[in-house]
Amino acid sequence: MAVNLPAPNPIELYPIAGVRLGVTEAGIKKTDRKDLTVILLEPGTSVAGVFTQNRFCAAPVQLCREHLASGAGARALLINTGNANAGTGPDGLARALATCVALAHKLGISAQQVLPFSTGVIMESLPSERIVAGLDAALADASADHWLRGAEAIMTTDTTLKAFGAQVLIDGVLVSITGIAKGSGMIHPNMATMLGFLATDACISPMLMQQLVAELAEGSFNRITVDGDTSTNDSFLLVATHQACHAPIESLDSVAGQALKVALLGVAQKLAQAIVRDGEGATKFITIKVEGGKTQAECRQVAYAIAHSPLVKTAFFASDPNLGRILAAVGYAGISDLDQTGIDLYLADVHVVVQGGRNPAYREEDGQRVMQQSEIAMRVLLGRGAATDTVWTCDLSHEYVSINADYRS
Amino acid sequence: MAVNLPAPNPIELYPIAGVRLGVTEAGIKKTDRKDLTVILLEPGTSVAGVFTQNRFCAAPVQLCREHLASGAGARALLINTGNANAGTGPDGLARALATCVALAHKLGISAQQVLPFSTGVIMESLPSERIVAGLDAALADASADHWLRGAEAIMTTDTTLKAFGAQVLIDGVLVSITGIAKGSGMIHPNMATMLGFLATDACISPMLMQQLVAELAEGSFNRITVDGDTSTNDSFLLVATHQACHAPIESLDSVAGQALKVALLGVAQKLAQAIVRDGEGATKFITIKVEGGKTQAECRQVAYAIAHSPLVKTAFFASDPNLGRILAAVGYAGISDLDQTGIDLYLADVHVVVQGGRNPAYREEDGQRVMQQSEIAMRVLLGRGAATDTVWTCDLSHEYVSINADYRS
Repeated sequence: MAVNLPAPNPIELYPIAGVRLGVTEAGIKKTDRKDLTVILLEPGTSVAGVFTQNRFCAAPVQLCREHLASGAGARALLINTGNANAGTGPDGLARALATCVALAHKLGISAQQVLPFSTGVIMESLPSERIVAGLDAALADASADHWLRGAEAIMTTDTTLKAFGAQVLIDGVLVSITGIAKGSGMIHPNMATMLGFLATDACISPMLMQQLVAELAEGSFNRITVDGDTSTNDSFLLVATHQACHAPIESLDSVAGQALKVALLGVAQKLAQAIVRDGEGATKFITIKVEGGKTQAECRQVAYAIAHSPLVKTAFFASDPNLGRILAAVGYAGISDLDQTGIDLYLADVHVVVQGGRNPAYREEDGQRVMQQSEIAMRVLLGRGAATDTVWTCDLSHEYVSINADYRS
Repeated sequence: MAVNLPAPNPIELYPIAGVRLGVTEAGIKKTDRKDLTVILLEPGTSVAGVFTQNRFCAAPVQLCREHLASGAGARALLINTGNANAGTGPDGLARALATCVALAHKLGISAQQVLPFSTGVIMESLPSERIVAGLDAALADASADHWLRGAEAIMTTDTTLKAFGAQVLIDGVLVSITGIAKGSGMIHPNMATMLGFLATDACISPMLMQQLVAELAEGSFNRITVDGDTSTNDSFLLVATHQACHAPIESLDSVAGQALKVALLGVAQKLAQAIVRDGEGATKFITIKVEGGKTQAECRQVAYAIAHSPLVKTAFFASDPNLGRILAAVGYAGISDLDQTGIDLYLADVHVVVQGGRNPAYREEDGQRVMQQSEIAMRVLLGRGAATDTVWTCDLSHEYVSINADYRS
């Protein structure tokens, strides 16, 4: 049960000129389940991506990086669930490549023009034969209107679809943005989430794509955590088909560049937050803002220490204002010269801690009132500088243990 | 229910000449519960300690550091449960000091000769009046035979007592060692555990005490984790009364120094492992050995990444050999130049991963057999060097969530 995450609004999932999606049931791990997706891109489309920093990165992530670096120009994305193809050694690379070759053959393009993505269980051999066997059905299904089907077909332990869109005027021309993502556990992206795809028909210089996708990831997927586990397969891809008829964007700092970036970031943040809202077992959506740091990096460090603390997360689950646990996490976040007498803590509008000690005016029932809500924002004031950062996370419930103790059973 | 942790053997809890313990029920948080302990030390006793690195360290930790640094010579330890006196600001320091002053007055010593220790809930005011009111009863109870009572009186969420002893011959003289500890949650010591006290009648140069206690902590309490939360109150104290009649130990590298250190470390490791065995909700005791690292530090870094992963911990709880989760944790442990094709993984004697991929000879039922045991040892081979390190941890169960969601209720 995702926290305050309504079903996607199909009207807002705008077709992107130059992009078609097709899905099928390839029986990769289970039957009767959409598990294979192809996303077809017209020639001239620009693609840029950011990928997991996990040193055990999966075979498809390794291939994606190579294929993007080749400069061949991506023409198709090939996404499977049910198997992550990670921890699979040379055989895993060969199997991922075989699926790219098969799809390239059917489309009359080169294998380097196919970007593969996998998600699911780690350290099991990819059933590449089943993927290849499913390609015809997926291709036959391809349509610009199938973003919702794509969002469904990339889900694993997700309980709900994650898809958002936006439109923005650039030089008076309507530009569309649509994105889908999946992810629920093993979520502490270090570049990007499990899988996120964001497409636009904006006309933007291909030279700007890598910087743009990195900035978008920094402001969205790199600000969330469910369980602190960085996946082997995190991938976030930005696709621009350049088919909108405005003047090309040559700088992200221009008026048009800023407008596009804000619109893209809005969708990316909604997708990233949707992953937290659908975090495994989540019952609360928690925003942790750290202010008054010397650097943004130390603010983020403190925010993640709080967001990863099992004690803080279980207290939120229990709606128990056992807020000393937050102070403990601030204290062990790794800022060696932190002065506890400079710390203030707010839970929503409730001033809990003043200069490192309990606020004399703080009443437990005020903390209790905030803790019972399903959307909780806290502010930690470090009193050391002017930097700030924000992280989004969820609580730790019995359901998290059940899901992860039973995932493969 | 602690994992394979039998009740302490009273015969092995040797009286230490020069040390007496007294406990009472002071009603600090609950009634009908031993919650106040005094440990009285004869003049001439040496004491050295290591304390939490948490920047939100508790008021008693701050006072302990000051009193030890004063050189006054510790004559009494004063320990309460039911309240951590952390996150309490200047009022917390004043209250901790007031309890030291009261005990010092009764004993005819200075307040600096009293070391205070607190454990319990954070950010609530210490009921120092109740502690002071309980001192007479605790002092009346003081006896060299009360180690077991002391182990009981320092417990909080612990389900079992943690007390071990050992004897060792030094220059033909029998030297005794007895230690007690408490801790079950908020366990990821960064210098020492919640509370650990180790006493010996060995005659050792006071100059060696600080080095010795630091080395003991490094080899025991600093190698464990339950939930990755470093407490605000971690304290580990080594007490030497010098009353055994062997020639004074002037070097830890001497034969006698080595013998004493090995015996002390043995007790310290049993205490540290007892904390993991009694980790909140623990059903498995897990030893993580990382070999083949460039440095011991990177081995420990990898071991802790595995030990802190909620996904790994829930898989152990479920006895599910979903061992790819271990590879993912190795991959995100932060070794930026780690080569996944150099990694091997053993679960007990089962060779699971060869050169970063699944061992073709690995059968899931072999992994399953190991996972079902309550004592599990894994070895991760990094293939980068000759360094090694070991960390002890437990699994993550429903019971952990229940305990921490209900702790204050």
